[in-house]
Amino acid sequence: MTDKSEGVRLSDEQRLDWLRLIRSDNVGPRTFRALNNHYGGARAALSAVPDLARRGGATGPARPSREDAAREFKAAKTLGVLGEPDYPRRLQMIDDAPPLLAVRGNAAALNLPAVAVVGARNASAAGVRFAERLARDLGEAGFAVVSGLARGIDAAAHRASLASGTIAVLAGGHDRLYPPEHAELAGAILAQGALVSEMPFGREPRARDFPRRNRLISGICAGVVVVEAARRSGSLITARFALEQGREVFAVPGSPLDPRAEGSNDLIKQGATLVTEAADVLADLRPIIGTPIELRAEEPEAPPPPAELGAAERARIVELLGPTPVPIDDLVRLSGSSPAAVRVVLLELELAGRLERHGGALVSLL
Amino acid sequence: MTDKSEGVRLSDEQRLDWLRLIRSDNVGPRTFRALNNHYGGARAALSAVPDLARRGGATGPARPSREDAAREFKAAKTLGVLGEPDYPRRLQMIDDAPPLLAVRGNAAALNLPAVAVVGARNASAAGVRFAERLARDLGEAGFAVVSGLARGIDAAAHRASLASGTIAVLAGGHDRLYPPEHAELAGAILAQGALVSEMPFGREPRARDFPRRNRLISGICAGVVVVEAARRSGSLITARFALEQGREVFAVPGSPLDPRAEGSNDLIKQGATLVTEAADVLADLRPIIGTPIELRAEEPEAPPPPAELGAAERARIVELLGPTPVPIDDLVRLSGSSPAAVRVVLLELELAGRLERHGGALVSLL
Repeated sequence: MTDKSEGVRLSDEQRLDWLRLIRSDNVGPRTFRALNNHYGGARAALSAVPDLARRGGATGPARPSREDAAREFKAAKTLGVLGEPDYPRRLQMIDDAPPLLAVRGNAAALNLPAVAVVGARNASAAGVRFAERLARDLGEAGFAVVSGLARGIDAAAHRASLASGTIAVLAGGHDRLYPPEHAELAGAILAQGALVSEMPFGREPRARDFPRRNRLISGICAGVVVVEAARRSGSLITARFALEQGREVFAVPGSPLDPRAEGSNDLIKQGATLVTEAADVLADLRPIIGTPIELRAEEPEAPPPPAELGAAERARIVELLGPTPVPIDDLVRLSGSSPAAVRVVLLELELAGRLERHGGALVSLL
Repeated sequence: MTDKSEGVRLSDEQRLDWLRLIRSDNVGPRTFRALNNHYGGARAALSAVPDLARRGGATGPARPSREDAAREFKAAKTLGVLGEPDYPRRLQMIDDAPPLLAVRGNAAALNLPAVAVVGARNASAAGVRFAERLARDLGEAGFAVVSGLARGIDAAAHRASLASGTIAVLAGGHDRLYPPEHAELAGAILAQGALVSEMPFGREPRARDFPRRNRLISGICAGVVVVEAARRSGSLITARFALEQGREVFAVPGSPLDPRAEGSNDLIKQGATLVTEAADVLADLRPIIGTPIELRAEEPEAPPPPAELGAAERARIVELLGPTPVPIDDLVRLSGSSPAAVRVVLLELELAGRLERHGGALVSLL
């Protein structure tokens, strides 16, 4: 367990390396970690990326230039770095925590215990009113309220917690707010709370960025409250992430005849805590907030990079892969190669955009 | 465990005795059972009642005449007798099951597995619509729907289950329907379902008769569904009885801003199963319905009536009693009297209207 005070700060040069690595093609948080561990640092990993990607079959993998990274670094103003003291405490626990988080506004809000209030964009008047009341009461109880800046419930939750501390997690870059009509709300949050994104400036949010963003909303928080949610709505994705991340899930009930309550009623059936007032949330979260956070155990120090792999060994490992997910352990066993060699081949394929990682150390070819 | 086929039928004379005994002043279901057991039958108990009550301090305890009982017997047409095969199976399990139940209509409905659907009199349009849908679906699944003939949810539940089998449990006598404007609905139930009361004809229901009636609604059923209920409403009393009787409790959620949902949302917080469709109820009740019913173990055969108690012994026992509930075991120990003697003194006080029995074999003076 790492205590907050033990966080080590990166130098500005190291930050630039981190930024360039996480912004390279096909490098997500998990690949970032694997590369960083394998090569003993972001600089060495960065140098290795082009060769790795080429061997994995990519034609032109992109790494941002040092100048691009410096520009983004400057624009971000505050960059939360995974492992540093300012990085949101609970977010460090999740498996795919972003190595860097661009924070704008009052970063102190990220040090408060946090709870997410999320829900339908087409919320009912009652839903909006309830979200406001809940967010205000949770704020008065000392919690930062986290949400997604969306229309309806999200916006109501932010507005009601401006004074006490509110955090909006964006799906795109800081200069590409969605929805655009919430620019004024975002400005108000900037003045008193925080806007957070793992995406680079200039990144227009696409449909698939929203579920990805939702893992950060739940990851920052000790619990997630779903206020109104139809079946198959984004709020349920946030609730699923919360469960996977070991966060508490809360849901606000509604009439069985109201389609906007179907998702939240389902959550309660599945074991979420029913919420009719802030006290229901506080009763579950206060004991959790009081206990120290178990940080994810880091992988051991990286072994030295393995000797160059022979073409035959690489081909043998790739042949074992197909569209059906297989355990990495099986690849090691069946190929006769070392775990380090298998890891390198998987990294190569990943950087070439040809590998998909599934839960439970399963991989498949794309 | 007694099987249905083993029920013993009373003769008409015995029924009259039972009726006169349960209609005597200060004789409720528990006292009825104690007297019946103690004297080895209702006739002997009936003869003993005036003396017992006098010794307990009553001036003029009333027993209905044989003629009154015969008139009620005739009016009731069908009289469910505790222990007989036609008596509702599950109701036999409860501690204070009425010895006699006046049934009008189609008594066959009482043989179906049953579920209660109860709720607010000032129900919302959505609540009424949901109650109708639920009652119809539960009826189609083979359940009798039991309710209290009240305005709002109760009436909706009865109406939607007329064809499949519905049971209205009354708080007053069969000729004193409440509310009066439901006479037509009661007529429709009479034609296809059943109306049930433990009260004598002519008995106008008083406020305190409704909670008492509610124990029968839950007692007849395998489970109780609360559709809309404010805090401190009658439906919550039915739910509490259901819990005490080991019945399943279900509740339909609603908006936290709707006062009519406060009671049902509270029930879910306390562990009731959230219901948005009949399948939620059926999933829990079908397995229960399939298992045989454990009937309440009857007390052993009555011992012979004890020798006449001396005034000193009686006084010693009465002196040990006060407004604070005390365990009957303590009375036996502290008085030095036999358990049978203590029981007799308690019966005397009870018949004189001076004793209150609490749960857990506790008694106090009124």
